[in-house]
Amino acid sequence: MALTEFSVIGEFFKLDAAYGHSPVIGIGDDCAILDVPAGYQLAVSTDTLVEGVHFLPGSDPVHLGHKVLAVNLSDLAAMGATPAWVSLAITLPNIDEPWLAAFTEGFFALASRYSLRLIGGDTTRGPLSITINIMGLLPTGQRLTRSGACVGDDVYVSGAFGNAGLGLLKARSGAADLTDVDVAAYLRPQPCVELGQALLSVATSCIDISDGLSADMNHILSASHVGASIEHSAVPLTKSVVEHVKQLDDVFWPYATGDDYQLCFTVPAGVDVGSLEKEGRTKITKIGVIEEDLGLRLVQQSGESRELNKGYEHFDE
Amino acid sequence: MALTEFSVIGEFFKLDAAYGHSPVIGIGDDCAILDVPAGYQLAVSTDTLVEGVHFLPGSDPVHLGHKVLAVNLSDLAAMGATPAWVSLAITLPNIDEPWLAAFTEGFFALASRYSLRLIGGDTTRGPLSITINIMGLLPTGQRLTRSGACVGDDVYVSGAFGNAGLGLLKARSGAADLTDVDVAAYLRPQPCVELGQALLSVATSCIDISDGLSADMNHILSASHVGASIEHSAVPLTKSVVEHVKQLDDVFWPYATGDDYQLCFTVPAGVDVGSLEKEGRTKITKIGVIEEDLGLRLVQQSGESRELNKGYEHFDE
Repeated sequence: MALTEFSVIGEFFKLDAAYGHSPVIGIGDDCAILDVPAGYQLAVSTDTLVEGVHFLPGSDPVHLGHKVLAVNLSDLAAMGATPAWVSLAITLPNIDEPWLAAFTEGFFALASRYSLRLIGGDTTRGPLSITINIMGLLPTGQRLTRSGACVGDDVYVSGAFGNAGLGLLKARSGAADLTDVDVAAYLRPQPCVELGQALLSVATSCIDISDGLSADMNHILSASHVGASIEHSAVPLTKSVVEHVKQLDDVFWPYATGDDYQLCFTVPAGVDVGSLEKEGRTKITKIGVIEEDLGLRLVQQSGESRELNKGYEHFDE
Repeated sequence: MALTEFSVIGEFFKLDAAYGHSPVIGIGDDCAILDVPAGYQLAVSTDTLVEGVHFLPGSDPVHLGHKVLAVNLSDLAAMGATPAWVSLAITLPNIDEPWLAAFTEGFFALASRYSLRLIGGDTTRGPLSITINIMGLLPTGQRLTRSGACVGDDVYVSGAFGNAGLGLLKARSGAADLTDVDVAAYLRPQPCVELGQALLSVATSCIDISDGLSADMNHILSASHVGASIEHSAVPLTKSVVEHVKQLDDVFWPYATGDDYQLCFTVPAGVDVGSLEKEGRTKITKIGVIEEDLGLRLVQQSGESRELNKGYEHFDE
């Protein structure tokens, strides 16, 4: 029995949990109606994930439901915003009830962790792709941006780099073991929502790393009209990534590979960041410093310095 | 020379016009930041249009840029909201600069008519589809919904019905003459934004007609727990649609065909609607009445009454 568009929405996209910011009107009318509390501004971001481009054909729908939301939560995290509401537009070749049930399981498990309410969406027929529009709240006037980095600021990152890129290589060979740190980083990225919120009062700039540390850090540098040097030996790399780099004999690989969804941020030198790891529930590491000279330099242990400017771009492969 | 994702956004999706509600932060960071004015609530809607499903392969990109926005403006119109901000997520097989220039020409021409600001978006590679997330403003507590129709209310529609469905048939045969009322209704629908705003203080319920008058009016009836009768002889049909109905010998055709983006709304009997056409900048016509008996009945001139319940549903063809 074919389900109609309307009953699909009703069956799978309904979230009746009484947590988070209730919409004035949620799913089921032509628009949702939202009340932004007094003293807050709205942070809004949109991301699309397309099968075969952003995820492998035949991906496990539970992981996919998690990941598509994690990618968007990561954008809120990069601004320091608190997640509030989300819309889900999903295009499917045909209605596949077990697939939808699994997708929504992954999606709602992550949404509920952040008290995020689904307030609307659209289901259409076509090649598989998912677009999310996410909305978060920021105290008026407070936010993290890409443009505030100042000469002398320290450069920090959360977590480690290159694991998702390595996880993609493993997933392509069929690996799906979530106890593998690389596979987990690729299939189930954990957005740094708590860290973003903790950075609101501390960081001068912030970005989330979706296209590679090099590409995304360069966005901070151009927006802030500064440069930076990072120490290769300081950059957090797991044993698996260090080994992969050795095999490839390519020290730049961890900087050019995407999908890690860690945060990169700058903090004025001397500011105490001691409580950030606890508040942000993740490891942070100082990897470099903001400088006047434009460009991003990677300094190796030999003292050799090389320009870093390349990352993953969707139309530039 | 291949453009990168980032320069595509910069080149084509930038709107520097100094009209409308300026975002606190617009395109270029991880999120846009918006200030909802005190005393207002936010109306939010999302719609996806997929090539080959919602528009013909090879569609003129100027018309497409107009139509994808018109479809979303129509959802704001149905709630009585004033357009404010919009995000555009576009998935393209490859970067085609003339296509993008034409698409944004159509998109921004309509956006500027409603002082609508583009505040963000995403460009990805994949089969052509476009998802829009649109946001509008409503005075706190005021809105049109589907659920307020009361027994005895008059049922009205804007414009005329069936033209877009007939226009699709003509466009499939290659017609692109915008002076043809049907082709224009299909390629360049005009959202009833002004009418929606004018209805805020008058209508008890409202919906926009995207899936056919029958399907969409049935949404009002179920949400309001009422029924209705409409008089076939009162329903506004252009000469072209009347002729098509004769050829098909199918009186139900104009009620089952979609894409007209007119409004259907209910008004308490006796309320003066004299100023609505001028304020709403469109013709309105009384076509029926809300009744206690559930269901939607079409009463023909012979007096014969038939149940109307079928519309266009994306997964149910």
